[in-house]
Amino acid sequence: MDCQDKPGNDERWEVDSGSKCGMTTNDNRAIICYTINMIYLDYAAATPIDAKVLAAMMPYLTDLFYNPSANYMPAVRVRNDFEDARHRIASIIGARPTEIIFTAGATESVNLALLGVDGKIVTTVIEHMSVLNVVKNRDGKILPVDEKGQINLNELKSAITDDVELVSIGYANSEIGTVQEIEEIARIIADIRVKRREHGNKTPLYLHTDASAAAGLLDINVARLGVDLMTLNAGKCYGPKQVGLLYVRAGIVLKPLIVGGGQELGLRSGTENVAGAVGFAKALELAEKHRKNEVIRLAKLRDDLQKFLVQEFPDIVINGSQKHRLPNLLNFSLPGLDGERAVFALDQNGVCVATGSACAANKGSRSHVLTAIGLTPEIADGSIRISLGRSTTDDEIAALKPILRDILRHERELS
Amino acid sequence: MDCQDKPGNDERWEVDSGSKCGMTTNDNRAIICYTINMIYLDYAAATPIDAKVLAAMMPYLTDLFYNPSANYMPAVRVRNDFEDARHRIASIIGARPTEIIFTAGATESVNLALLGVDGKIVTTVIEHMSVLNVVKNRDGKILPVDEKGQINLNELKSAITDDVELVSIGYANSEIGTVQEIEEIARIIADIRVKRREHGNKTPLYLHTDASAAAGLLDINVARLGVDLMTLNAGKCYGPKQVGLLYVRAGIVLKPLIVGGGQELGLRSGTENVAGAVGFAKALELAEKHRKNEVIRLAKLRDDLQKFLVQEFPDIVINGSQKHRLPNLLNFSLPGLDGERAVFALDQNGVCVATGSACAANKGSRSHVLTAIGLTPEIADGSIRISLGRSTTDDEIAALKPILRDILRHERELS
Repeated sequence: MDCQDKPGNDERWEVDSGSKCGMTTNDNRAIICYTINMIYLDYAAATPIDAKVLAAMMPYLTDLFYNPSANYMPAVRVRNDFEDARHRIASIIGARPTEIIFTAGATESVNLALLGVDGKIVTTVIEHMSVLNVVKNRDGKILPVDEKGQINLNELKSAITDDVELVSIGYANSEIGTVQEIEEIARIIADIRVKRREHGNKTPLYLHTDASAAAGLLDINVARLGVDLMTLNAGKCYGPKQVGLLYVRAGIVLKPLIVGGGQELGLRSGTENVAGAVGFAKALELAEKHRKNEVIRLAKLRDDLQKFLVQEFPDIVINGSQKHRLPNLLNFSLPGLDGERAVFALDQNGVCVATGSACAANKGSRSHVLTAIGLTPEIADGSIRISLGRSTTDDEIAALKPILRDILRHERELS
Repeated sequence: MDCQDKPGNDERWEVDSGSKCGMTTNDNRAIICYTINMIYLDYAAATPIDAKVLAAMMPYLTDLFYNPSANYMPAVRVRNDFEDARHRIASIIGARPTEIIFTAGATESVNLALLGVDGKIVTTVIEHMSVLNVVKNRDGKILPVDEKGQINLNELKSAITDDVELVSIGYANSEIGTVQEIEEIARIIADIRVKRREHGNKTPLYLHTDASAAAGLLDINVARLGVDLMTLNAGKCYGPKQVGLLYVRAGIVLKPLIVGGGQELGLRSGTENVAGAVGFAKALELAEKHRKNEVIRLAKLRDDLQKFLVQEFPDIVINGSQKHRLPNLLNFSLPGLDGERAVFALDQNGVCVATGSACAANKGSRSHVLTAIGLTPEIADGSIRISLGRSTTDDEIAALKPILRDILRHERELS
């Protein structure tokens, strides 16, 4: 194993070490503010663009700016690079290139998948708001989850009535980290499809999963998972923001969400974001290359931190499944803590963590996920989400522990 | 006037001069291919990102990657920079910040404007496919244009029956450059609104314009234009691709196209593209700062080129209005020419121009705009679009003339 294969510091993004990537900025003030020894632990909300990803994008942000639909050779070469990115992504997720539809992020991908079908949708109560806000205006069924955030497969089976066309279940929940049994769900759906054919029911039935939080941490091979539609988000796996994709299994006919010039097989019109697609391909390649080692490394750090917190706070509640959970995520509640205040206090000490999902936090509303797993309002309000990432080091977690202990204790005493 | 105010070479993007912007790329091959002395004259299809725009974006592509919805200070500062970009754009177009909805490009903005209303839509036959493909599935009326691409205002008045809710008319056509009288159209619509009120007709009536091709070349102040909704595209004015906005006048209630976390006042969900918004603001500031001088400079070069072509080819047909036309655009037809072949021959000699719009060209179909202005198939197929931009120099146009003359003559003789 050479240094290229080792997820060591040479491979890391260096915001927290105080160094810069060598790019010129026009805002020295900002650079000074952000290169303190900050401990960033909110990778579930946003990942930095990997330096190698940005390097891959730069030609398309500078010289290779051509419209990929133009006829002259420089533009044709850009088109080829764009299609090459699609091929590379397809190869990583085990799909055909024609099954990859580039979008402007996970929210758009989810909307395209769900609004692309006419029939009834079945989903769960802990899905992202991009799922729930589509389903609430539609004929749909929203399934509960257990106290670990897991869905009940028998309930799912019963919910898939003859008129259901789409089942949309998030692969891993970005708030509590619970991972669903997508392969098993896919088998259930395949069985129902067989039965429908036997009974002459021609209603199609598809499984969509939002795998935004899973890339780089779980297996995202669509063939192995058995999904028909899958959402991925570059901005959550060290790629550029507002770049996403929807995997659409060959043979599935969706209605487009955005119409126009007919790009992306007519499913998503608009001049192509070549830099974004190339960056996305690079980000997924890096994520997949380092996945196995990174999962072990992150889970070890996370488990170590969890053990420390359980020792320090015997009444701590660890949220989400501890068996089927993202390796980089720790969501816990401390009864009596004001989570929002604790986040501010941690922030003042250079530690960035979240209270709930960034979206929900922004609106000051209680997390629908924490409510769905049965937390009382008081417990839910005392919850913190810590999510580790590529730049997280042993030293950081070691430095974090006393800060976290002291602030959580202090904040709890104040309440 | 100091050098900052002069649109001289110091302000220019330098792809065609063989120099680079100093950024590291991971693809030396590509750099070598593209730094020949190419003459790029397809700015209507794609503009390069201005070096100052990219410099403004870089902090948000590197250190300042935080999710603007997060609660800690680094993220709050990113949120502030994002909102600052919105304020700056609002100021440039004469709007309030709350009237700016960021999107992932013009196509999405147009879809949001048109699909955001329920009622009947009136538009014209020369609109972009993002307009026409929405209207064809809706209750709508598509107005013809005259041989210059101008709409008839009396026909427009008659078309706005009591059930019409939206009029969507492109400000400037990106294929032939014809500019519509948006201010006059806005007055007509305001009059109809008054009459509707007097008659107790409560159907709202809005004017949307796609100003993608106008930024940096025409006045895009929404108050002076009198429009209710306006689409702008960063990727067409030296900003990043797949970044756009929809101006939505205060008081107008649109249905969202993409739902989820509720970003952009609930009208456009998805994690914000901060780098894109900041780049867009910078691009519009630069475009507006240099607009007056640039319009004079480009029109002079374009007129000079047109004069040369008219002398060399007495039977040339200049497409679009010569009175109300984008200053940087020249669309012409040479009877007997195979436009597509001519574009390939020009490409082989280092000149990049278009046959029609990039989208239409990509599909090998005849331009719906050239057909709409009454060109016979033979004449339409012999058309070339040349569009000048910020990097276009006097020397380039001088160098272009003999190449263009020789190739067009040769290609015509072959036909």
